[in-house]
Order: sequence, then structure tokens, then C-alpha cells
Amino acid sequence: MLYNVQVKVMPLKNLLDPQGKAVQNGLSSLGLNNIKDVRIGKHITLQIEAISEEEAKSAADEAGKKLLANPVMEYFEIELVN
Amino acid sequence: MLYNVQVKVMPLKNLLDPQGKAVQNGLSSLGLNNIKDVRIGKHITLQIEAISEEEAKSAADEAGKKLLANPVMEYFEIELVN
Repeated sequence: MLYNVQVKVMPLKNLLDPQGKAVQNGLSSLGLNNIKDVRIGKHITLQIEAISEEEAKSAADEAGKKLLANPVMEYFEIELVN
Repeated sequence: MLYNVQVKVMPLKNLLDPQGKAVQNGLSSLGLNNIKDVRIGKHITLQIEAISEEEAKSAADEAGKKLLANPVMEYFEIELVN
């Protein structure tokens, strides 16, 4: 069966996010001064062929650990969609 | 009040996603052959100062339209977290 898994990869909470800061400044200069903080990460959707939800999740977890996220700077969260 | 809003920016469904394809090939060469499709977008978290959920959402929508997403290649979805 095909499972849709979403992986959210974000910069670690205690690290600065210069890309987010730049976007926040951009939004501010567009008049959106009420946006106080911006953090930018990756949103990855995977289609995984697996026999169970557990197998799909564990494949996504392995993908996150081996390739999708850099643990020095990022953390990731997995969510099964369907 | 501070609202946390998540904005998901993804490549349009009918467009190729070369970055996703490259990652899929990388996962495959790491032995994860059961991952059949990968699409990569951005996950943006915004902290918005607003008096109501509606105001926070409309600020996020404006940010998405004006800066966060390129409508030629991307669509975005907004989700209020707290």
C-alpha cells in the first residue's frame, strides 16, 4: 500500500535562522510589521510503499536520519497523512 | 496576542520537482527503494501579533501572496497552530 508521509525539517530552536530573519525584514518592509518571528525549514512529502503504517513511518524516519535532516543544525518531525 | 501560523509552500502538483527527484535517487542509493515519490517545499513558521485568529490568518495569507510563495511555481497552505 502507498502511504503519504510528511516530513518537516526545521532549524533547531536555539539556533539563529538568518533566512527567516531576512524574510521577516522583507515582510516588515512590505508593511507586515505584526509578524514578529519567521523560521524557515523544509517540508518534504514522501510516497512510501509499505505493508503497514509502522513500516512506512520507520522508512521515513530512516530517510530523515540518513539524508533529509542535518542533525547538527536541524530536527525533523514525521506525520502520516492518509 | 501572539499566534503561531505555519505556512506550507509546495511546488505545484503538475510541475516536476527536480530537487525531490534528486533526493529520491539519493534515498534509493541508500537502500530506501520503497520511497516512490519525493516532493520538497518550504515549511515556514510565523509568529503573528494579532487581536484575533482571523487577523492572524489574513496576515499570513498576505505574506504568502506577497513574498513567501511564487504563484507561477508554488502553492501555499496556512494552518493556525495554537
